[in-house]
Amino acid sequence: MKTYLDCFVCLFRQSLEAARFSDADEEGQKQVLFTALEVLKNMDPTSTPPQLTSRIHQTVREVTGITDPYQVLKEKSTQEALSLYPRLKQLVRKADDPLTTAIKLAIAGNIIDYGRPDEIDLVEIIEQSAQQSLAINHLPELIGRLKSVPWVLYLADNAGETVFDRVLIEELSPLPVKYVVKGGASLNDATRKDALEAGISEVAEIVDTGYAAAGIIPECSSPEFLGLLENAPLIIAKGQGNYESLSEYDDGRLFFLLQAKCEILSRDIGVPIKSWIVKQGAPAS
Amino acid sequence: MKTYLDCFVCLFRQSLEAARFSDADEEGQKQVLFTALEVLKNMDPTSTPPQLTSRIHQTVREVTGITDPYQVLKEKSTQEALSLYPRLKQLVRKADDPLTTAIKLAIAGNIIDYGRPDEIDLVEIIEQSAQQSLAINHLPELIGRLKSVPWVLYLADNAGETVFDRVLIEELSPLPVKYVVKGGASLNDATRKDALEAGISEVAEIVDTGYAAAGIIPECSSPEFLGLLENAPLIIAKGQGNYESLSEYDDGRLFFLLQAKCEILSRDIGVPIKSWIVKQGAPAS
Repeated sequence: MKTYLDCFVCLFRQSLEAARFSDADEEGQKQVLFTALEVLKNMDPTSTPPQLTSRIHQTVREVTGITDPYQVLKEKSTQEALSLYPRLKQLVRKADDPLTTAIKLAIAGNIIDYGRPDEIDLVEIIEQSAQQSLAINHLPELIGRLKSVPWVLYLADNAGETVFDRVLIEELSPLPVKYVVKGGASLNDATRKDALEAGISEVAEIVDTGYAAAGIIPECSSPEFLGLLENAPLIIAKGQGNYESLSEYDDGRLFFLLQAKCEILSRDIGVPIKSWIVKQGAPAS
Repeated sequence: MKTYLDCFVCLFRQSLEAARFSDADEEGQKQVLFTALEVLKNMDPTSTPPQLTSRIHQTVREVTGITDPYQVLKEKSTQEALSLYPRLKQLVRKADDPLTTAIKLAIAGNIIDYGRPDEIDLVEIIEQSAQQSLAINHLPELIGRLKSVPWVLYLADNAGETVFDRVLIEELSPLPVKYVVKGGASLNDATRKDALEAGISEVAEIVDTGYAAAGIIPECSSPEFLGLLENAPLIIAKGQGNYESLSEYDDGRLFFLLQAKCEILSRDIGVPIKSWIVKQGAPAS
């Protein structure tokens, strides 16, 4: 996805928020904000949002000295999601179509985010997820491909959401899954530590991108991860960051599973805000 | 009110919005945004929010060449409010306490804003305004002073809201009112033209601040307006911009009438967001 001008405003806001998550005092917050101004001013405007996000959060880390401002929040999200795990399993077990239910629950989990308003009731979202309609529905294409591929590359999004991913991966069993986390902390994106806390190592092989950024930035990626991206027969990409990174890849192996939580991204996809989406990278055949 | 770091983010967002209201194309919007970045970086951080807002919107005017980006929106707001005028008059006429009702309606009108979400139903707000509680209630002090002062200085806020002000001013009659609009266009703040369209000249003397800014900036004000501000026996200040400008003036002549529409301002005042407020400048005796 291209970077819209609104993304600059959002990134500026994010830099202040990250400074506060880093427990920076007012002076530190101000320093972060003004450094972010400078960074934004000098950025290549053809970058994707995750490229800019990555640079901004790198700046916050440099100014505050805090490597993982969202660590406490991420642990809390994982614990909250783990407490829901038995209910998630029960919903899948009792469903007429367990795989579809598990996929929808994986999308439900995408609502877990650092800025989630208090009024969002995660339990209610879970209970109603089976009835949730999809604004873009390439579910039949995804399910069709899942039947024939030898393994799946699964690009993770946020900590906590990982538990919902685990439920889907368990439902895909015995299909082997490589679960891709970020190579270092950026926003509330899941790292190896977060994935381990969610129990992912019991159901998938955990690999990482090789660098600390929310989303995928090919030029920063490890050769190992690039090789997987190149050769995977099917890629499930969760959340906005992965969509923003890879939406231009017109590739039928890619399936984006997300909730459109931001107005700009919703407009880019062409759906109303808050839509649930299963979107194949290339036009579904 | 001091400028919080969040205000910088909001101003950055406003600059993009104003560029779009000015019909700037993407390139023009980008130019505005990057000029705003530069301006924010070089601003005196001890300024009040209206001082910064004023400078940002001046920048937008310079870059786009559009003097009054919000003109169409302001005219629409005034027309909408004028269509409600008969109902406003009826509500006051039928009220047990017409003056209190007129004051509450004047606060109801403060919801009119350029960024008003579609889901806000102005008619419903009007109908329920008499029952609306005040998070800060210096209404008795205001009504007490209105009985004894020879005239009132009334600091206007947005276009459209002006019609609600007119209803209150008619209720204050025969008390003379000087109605202060902005000396030039800034955001959707009322100018002389907007006040005339709302029929203010029939009920009050219209004066202006002498400069184009949302809110009051003493060092830019005309000597005439500064004299009025200095000598007025009672000042009614409508809306957030006037509160942000004058909240430090510990002056019992000042009464702020507003809805706390922004989280930062609400926190500064110490009330929940969306609160309705009648606040005397000095601690009420």
